[in-house]
Amino acid sequence: MNEAPSQDHGPDPEDGHAPDGRQGPDGFQGPDREREESGPSRRALLWTAGAAGAGLGLGGLGTGSAAAAPAASGTAGTTAAAAGTATAPPRKGKTMIGVPFERRRTVRVGLIGLGNRGMGMLPLYLAIPNVQVVALCDPVKEKAAKAAKLVTDAGQPAPAVYTKGDHDFKNLCERGDIDFVYVATPWDLHHDMAATAMLSGKHVGVECPLAMRLDELWDLVDISERTRRHCMQVENCCYGRNEMRVLRMAHAGLFGDLLHGAGAYNHDLRQLMFDPSYYQGPWRRLWHTRLRGDLYPTHGFGPVANYMDINRGDRVVRISSFGTPALGLAEYRKAHMPPGDPSWKESYIESDRTFSVIQTAKGRVIRLEHDVSTPHPYSRINSLGGTKGVFEDYPERIYLEPDHTNDQWGDFSRYTQWDHWLWKEHANPPGGHGGMDYIMIFRLMQCLRLGLVPDFDVYDAATWSAPVPLSHASIKAHGAPLEIPDFTRGLWHRPRPGVDSQKPTG
Amino acid sequence: MNEAPSQDHGPDPEDGHAPDGRQGPDGFQGPDREREESGPSRRALLWTAGAAGAGLGLGGLGTGSAAAAPAASGTAGTTAAAAGTATAPPRKGKTMIGVPFERRRTVRVGLIGLGNRGMGMLPLYLAIPNVQVVALCDPVKEKAAKAAKLVTDAGQPAPAVYTKGDHDFKNLCERGDIDFVYVATPWDLHHDMAATAMLSGKHVGVECPLAMRLDELWDLVDISERTRRHCMQVENCCYGRNEMRVLRMAHAGLFGDLLHGAGAYNHDLRQLMFDPSYYQGPWRRLWHTRLRGDLYPTHGFGPVANYMDINRGDRVVRISSFGTPALGLAEYRKAHMPPGDPSWKESYIESDRTFSVIQTAKGRVIRLEHDVSTPHPYSRINSLGGTKGVFEDYPERIYLEPDHTNDQWGDFSRYTQWDHWLWKEHANPPGGHGGMDYIMIFRLMQCLRLGLVPDFDVYDAATWSAPVPLSHASIKAHGAPLEIPDFTRGLWHRPRPGVDSQKPTG
Repeated sequence: MNEAPSQDHGPDPEDGHAPDGRQGPDGFQGPDREREESGPSRRALLWTAGAAGAGLGLGGLGTGSAAAAPAASGTAGTTAAAAGTATAPPRKGKTMIGVPFERRRTVRVGLIGLGNRGMGMLPLYLAIPNVQVVALCDPVKEKAAKAAKLVTDAGQPAPAVYTKGDHDFKNLCERGDIDFVYVATPWDLHHDMAATAMLSGKHVGVECPLAMRLDELWDLVDISERTRRHCMQVENCCYGRNEMRVLRMAHAGLFGDLLHGAGAYNHDLRQLMFDPSYYQGPWRRLWHTRLRGDLYPTHGFGPVANYMDINRGDRVVRISSFGTPALGLAEYRKAHMPPGDPSWKESYIESDRTFSVIQTAKGRVIRLEHDVSTPHPYSRINSLGGTKGVFEDYPERIYLEPDHTNDQWGDFSRYTQWDHWLWKEHANPPGGHGGMDYIMIFRLMQCLRLGLVPDFDVYDAATWSAPVPLSHASIKAHGAPLEIPDFTRGLWHRPRPGVDSQKPTG
Repeated sequence: MNEAPSQDHGPDPEDGHAPDGRQGPDGFQGPDREREESGPSRRALLWTAGAAGAGLGLGGLGTGSAAAAPAASGTAGTTAAAAGTATAPPRKGKTMIGVPFERRRTVRVGLIGLGNRGMGMLPLYLAIPNVQVVALCDPVKEKAAKAAKLVTDAGQPAPAVYTKGDHDFKNLCERGDIDFVYVATPWDLHHDMAATAMLSGKHVGVECPLAMRLDELWDLVDISERTRRHCMQVENCCYGRNEMRVLRMAHAGLFGDLLHGAGAYNHDLRQLMFDPSYYQGPWRRLWHTRLRGDLYPTHGFGPVANYMDINRGDRVVRISSFGTPALGLAEYRKAHMPPGDPSWKESYIESDRTFSVIQTAKGRVIRLEHDVSTPHPYSRINSLGGTKGVFEDYPERIYLEPDHTNDQWGDFSRYTQWDHWLWKEHANPPGGHGGMDYIMIFRLMQCLRLGLVPDFDVYDAATWSAPVPLSHASIKAHGAPLEIPDFTRGLWHRPRPGVDSQKPTG
C-alpha cells in the first residue's frame, strides 16, 4: 500500500526555510502590509508577520498526488497507489518513539504566550504538585505582570519575566532551570518557538496546531530526533472524558473492528474574531484571508487517531478535502462592523465549512470538518464506528451489540465503568473545557516527573497538524487525494501505548 | 468551471449495451453462476442475471478524471478543472425539462414487481381518487394473485395479470390502456423495464436507484427525450415532511446562502438481507459481492439536491468517494448462518460504510453516506447549512439566526408554518414511511391527471442515481474526484419549479 518511506522527492528543509522559500508553490499571499500596520498592536503585526507571503511548505508534493486516474483498466487501483509519492526526507536522528523523559523531583515550566489560552492554562500548572512555573514570556507587559502575580499568589517564587519584544522568548528558552516550555501564541509562531525550545534543550508542548506548513512539521520532527527533546501537541480534546471513555471501549474491542470515525472543529467564532478585545490583534481572522482549508484539525483528528492507534499500528495515508464558498465572515462584517473598520480591507477565502476525508493504511476512513464562520451549535462530532456498533457525540449516544437493538440509541452514561483512570482519579478537575485541560496537563507533568514515555510525541503532533496545509492544497485541486507523510518513517506499525495509558504504580 | 457540455469522449450507448460491453472497464465480475443456480428461486436467478459480469458503463470516464495534480503552480486549480472531461453524448431528442403530462380524467396504472415494495405501494394507488390499477406483473403467481385481490377488494375492475416468466412485463407495457408504469423490481432490472415502458409510450416511475450503470442512465435520458415520455425516480424521501419543510425554508432564504448539505442511507439491513423470506432471493445481498460504492444514494441525495436546486440553477459537477473495509456481512454470516447456507459461497467487497463528497457548480458541498451492513440506528442524516444557520435530522434540530443563540439547538416543530401544502392538505397520510409514500404518489398522480409538469424528471433521476457507478469507481481510485455528467446537457442553470410546488388551482 505504498507505505515504504522513500528518500526521493522529499522536501528540502533548508530550501523550505530560505526567506523566499516562504512564498508557497500555490502563490497565495499573506495580508498586505498596509493593512497589518493599521492593526491594533505592534505585537499583532510582528507576531503574525511570519505569515506574510507564507506558503505551505509542500515541496514534497510537487512530484505527484495520490490521485488516481479513474478505473480505466483492471489495474488502475494499483497504478493509482503507485502514483503517490512517499514524502519522508532522510532521517537525521533516531526515532523519538518510546523515548522516556528524564525522571525529576520537580518539573520546572516556562510559558510563552499569556493571552486567553496561556493565561487560562497557567492556574492549572500552578495547581499540580511538584510543578514550578519559573519563567513567563509575553511582549504585552500587563499580561506578563498579571501572570507573574498569579504565580506568587500561588506561593511560588517570583518567576522570571520576558517582555522585551518579539524575540525575548529565546532568552526564556536559554535558561538553565527549565525542563518544559509551553507555547500558546499565534499559530505562525509555533514552529519557531518549538524549534528554539528544543534546540535550547527543553521539551516543548505547543498549542494547536503544531505548525501551518508541511516543511515546518518535518523540521520539528527532525529537530526532536536530533535534540532528543520531545515536541508535543498539547491536544486537550484527547483528554476529554467522553473521548477517553470511547478510546478505552474501542481498545477493549466493544466496537468490533474499527471502520470509521469523525471529528470536527465546528465552533462559531465570528463574534470573537471581530472582537478587538478577545484575540490580541486580528491574527486569527487573517488566516481566513490566506488559506481555504482546515485551519484547526487537531481537536477532531487527535481523538479519532487515538481510537484507531494511528502511528501505533495503523497510519493515515491520504487526505481529500472539500470546501464550501467563503461567505460567512463577510456577511458578519457587513452586519456588525462600522465603516472604516480595518477588517473592511480583508478578503476572506477560507471555506466556511471544510470537509476532509482521511484514509488509513488499514482502509479505515476518518472524516474531519472545520467551520468557525457560520451560525451553528458547537460540535466536535467525535464519532466512531465499527463492526459491533457506533458512538456519536453532540449529543452523546451509543449503539453497541449486543447491548442495543431495534435502532434505538443507548445511554452513554451507562458506560462510566470504562472511564479512563485519570477521570476516575480526578472526578471534578479544575479549569475550563470541562476539565480536560487539567487532565491533560496533570498527565503530561506526571510523565515528565516520573520519567515516563509521553502519551503523544512529535509524530502525533505532526500527523494531527498535517491537514492544515494539505487540506488547503487538496481543496485547490478540487478534492484530489494527497499523500499524508509518514512522519514516523516506517515505524507506524509498531503497537505501543498512547493516551490510553496504564496508571503508574509507586 | 468546465460546465459546457462536450460531445467528445462520451460513452457510446450502443457499445455499452453490446453483450460483451457489459463486462465493465474495471473488470469486476458478477456472482459466479454456480452460486446463483443454488439460490432460492429461478426468478432470483433470472432477474439478477443481467448483473453477471456487469460493468459500470463508465465509457465516458476512460479519458480522464476530475482529479487534479496538487497545487504545484498558481494555475493548478484551473488546469485541474480543464483535465476533467465533459461526458455528455450528443442529444438525440429535445429536452424533457418543463414538459407537462397530458391532462386526463383518470390515471391508468400498471405495476411491475409485487414484492415488499410493490405490494406496499399498491394500496396507496388504490386510495387515490381517479387512479385505476389496470395491470399487474410479477413472475411469482401468488404475489400477483394477492395483489389482484387487493384491486378488486377496492372496488376496481379485475386487473390484467402478467406472471409468465421474466419477460411478461413487456406485454404489460404494450397494453393500450395504461398511462403510467410503476417499476418496483430488483435494481438491475430497472433500466430495461423503464426503457421498455417508455418505448411502449408510457410514462414510467422507477424505484431507487434508477439504474446501476452510467451508460444505462444516459440511455434512459435519451429514450425519455426521444419518446417524450417522462422517466422518474419515485424518491419518496423527497416527500418526507421534514424534507419538504426544510426545502420550503431554504427556498424562502431562512438558511441564507446555502453552503453544504448531507444525506445518507444508513440502515442496518443485515438481518433482512440474510432472511430468505424477505427479499425474493439473494439479489440485494449479491450487490455486496459486486460493488464497493454507494448502492443506494437517492434517499440522501434527492432531498439535498432539491434544497440546492440541482438541475434548476446549480448542478453537481464532481464526486469523490471513500469506503471502509467490508467486514459486516461476513461477520453477521459467521454469527447467524448455518454451515452449508448458500451465502457461504459469497465474497463481500461492498464497503461497510461509504462516504461520498459531491461538489456543485456554485461550490457547495454535499456529503452522502451508505451503510447497510453494520449495527447502527437508522439515519438519512438530512442536514442543510447556510450562512444563516443549519438543520440536522436524526434527531431533528435547527439553529437559525436570529431565532437561536448561544449554541443551543432550537425546536424544529416550531416551524410547522413552513410545511409544504401537500402536508397541510394531508395531515395524516395513509401508508408506510411516515406517509411520504402516499404524499409522493398522490402528487405524481395529481400531475398526471391535471396535465402538470412533474416535480422531478429523468435528469433528476439520472443525477441522483449517478453516484452508484461513480462512487465505486472513485473508491477504487482511492478517492479521485470523478466528473458527474450533466444529464441536462447545459440546461441546469435555468431556475424552474420542482418538489417545492405550488398547489394547483381549480
